Amino acid sequence: MDLLLYWIGLTAVAVNALTGVLDAGRKRMDLVGVIMVGSATALGGGTVRDVLLDRTVFWISDPTYLVVALATTAAVFFAVRGLRLPPRLFLIPDAIGLALFTIVGTQIALEWQAPWLAASLLGVITGVVGGVLRDVLCNEVPLVFVRGELYASAAWAGALAFIGLQALGMSAVAAAWTGMAAIVAARLLAMAFRITLPTYSERE
Amino acid sequence: MDLLLYWIGLTAVAVNALTGVLDAGRKRMDLVGVIMVGSATALGGGTVRDVLLDRTVFWISDPTYLVVALATTAAVFFAVRGLRLPPRLFLIPDAIGLALFTIVGTQIALEWQAPWLAASLLGVITGVVGGVLRDVLCNEVPLVFVRGELYASAAWAGALAFIGLQALGMSAVAAAWTGMAAIVAARLLAMAFRITLPTYSERE
Amino acid sequence: MDLLLYWIGLTAVAVNALTGVLDAGRKRMDLVGVIMVGSATALGGGTVRDVLLDRTVFWISDPTYLVVALATTAAVFFAVRGLRLPPRLFLIPDAIGLALFTIVGTQIALEWQAPWLAASLLGVITGVVGGVLRDVLCNEVPLVFVRGELYASAAWAGALAFIGLQALGMSAVAAAWTGMAAIVAARLLAMAFRITLPTYSERE
Repeated sequence: MDLLLYWIGLTAVAVNALTGVLDAGRKRMDLVGVIMVGSATALGGGTVRDVLLDRTVFWISDPTYLVVALATTAAVFFAVRGLRLPPRLFLIPDAIGLALFTIVGTQIALEWQAPWLAASLLGVITGVVGGVLRDVLCNEVPLVFVRGELYASAAWAGALAFIGLQALGMSAVAAAWTGMAAIVAARLLAMAFRITLPTYSERE
Repeated sequence: MDLLLYWIGLTAVAVNALTGVLDAGRKRMDLVGVIMVGSATALGGGTVRDVLLDRTVFWISDPTYLVVALATTAAVFFAVRGLRLPPRLFLIPDAIGLALFTIVGTQIALEWQAPWLAASLLGVITGVVGGVLRDVLCNEVPLVFVRGELYASAAWAGALAFIGLQALGMSAVAAAWTGMAAIVAARLLAMAFRITLPTYSERE
Repeated sequence: MDLLLYWIGLTAVAVNALTGVLDAGRKRMDLVGVIMVGSATALGGGTVRDVLLDRTVFWISDPTYLVVALATTAAVFFAVRGLRLPPRLFLIPDAIGLALFTIVGTQIALEWQAPWLAASLLGVITGVVGGVLRDVLCNEVPLVFVRGELYASAAWAGALAFIGLQALGMSAVAAAWTGMAAIVAARLLAMAFRITLPTYSERE
């Protein structure tokens, strides 16, 4: 499980760095601006999780994460620079990054003795904060808010499924894959069919 | 004092969750968006205080706070959904939440050996950050800035009164009630009579 | 070196508080709003650095920093209140504050056993976060983003020079002065000649 978590974590960092570059590129930032947005997207969620858990921040204790974030950002910058990409393209890696980070974050919080309800929310925070930083730094409304597209709710459901399936006796590895698949599926289905949750109908 | 602090803390969490829902409701968010804004409003100030003091974050060490925040948010969501509430209604619970959190935050910082000046500012941070998060997430100018309505200044004066009255020999419990009453009174009077502080008159 | 660092840190706090007041003043904030923006600008970068390094926050462990930030803010408020200052005046102290904080932050991260790559980024964070907070609180696009004016890149180059020159055998004090001079020079030259980095040319 620990090795799996490590590789999932590195993949999540690379995938989120990719989404950061694709989003920052739409704003005509320069190279260093793009590197900062990419790195903040890749490392932001895990950083907040580690600070809340009072754990050594993961990219300070293991510089591999930092190298992966910087290298992915620079590589994507030069690879896609000048291309016209469809603006919604980055939603698919975004869904994958959300799923990977949510499950890694939940698992780390459980290992760090957080109670299950807090652990599920720390998973959601790990999954969501990078994208919120990306959207705020790019001056867009965070994907996680306002739109009824099951963003935080998909992450939360996946984190609770991951915890619940383990409590029911499923192995941690199988529960992790199930939780991640559920999050990606929920996000993609919600985007495809515009599934929404009940909204608060008060008007201004 | 500790028991009083605990109950004041729980009440402050519930009151701030309520203001978060009332504000988020005006933005047509869905259920999970409202829960996130309500929880961030309820738990944000204390979380920043605990991180700065290097204390275990209160809602991770005691899940009761988390349950109260989530339950209040969901209950208020379903209770007031569809009602047309006057937009300024939430200013009264907001003033109460500000007062409760400021005094709790100051007292915890003092117990954690912060010097008195830092403790008073940690109290202001505890009181103010939840509302700032709420306003930023709802894409409004934070109440605490720009308007000359004694927001942070009321909180700071209350925190300093709480510390000063104890130094003059008043019991902690009496000083806490006095500080909280001063904050609520200052906010409500400032709103009623539009009391302002000197402003910096440079023009653009 | 430690004494030098201490004085550089205090100077950086005062200089950043000054830029915060000059910027907040343009927004017609009241006295307490200005004090909050000035203090956040002065103390924000070092606070984030200390939280990430799991170090006691510097203005809680040594209240001198807090007193300097508050006193500078209040003094500048009353000194320049009502004057019409050229809007770009604050860019010079801003460059100096960036240089001082970046080198102090890098050195503290190295002393705290961060690997060199993470330490250079913690230096950039220390230098940049105060100004980002100032710009966000004053509702402006952060100087560090979008404009091709070598802001974070100047800080990063200075931090890497500071680390590299020490690795090549230069004394810490000489490397610190060289790094700081490089950051100020790069910022001022970039502003004077509008030097830019390659940008990502995709259009919306």
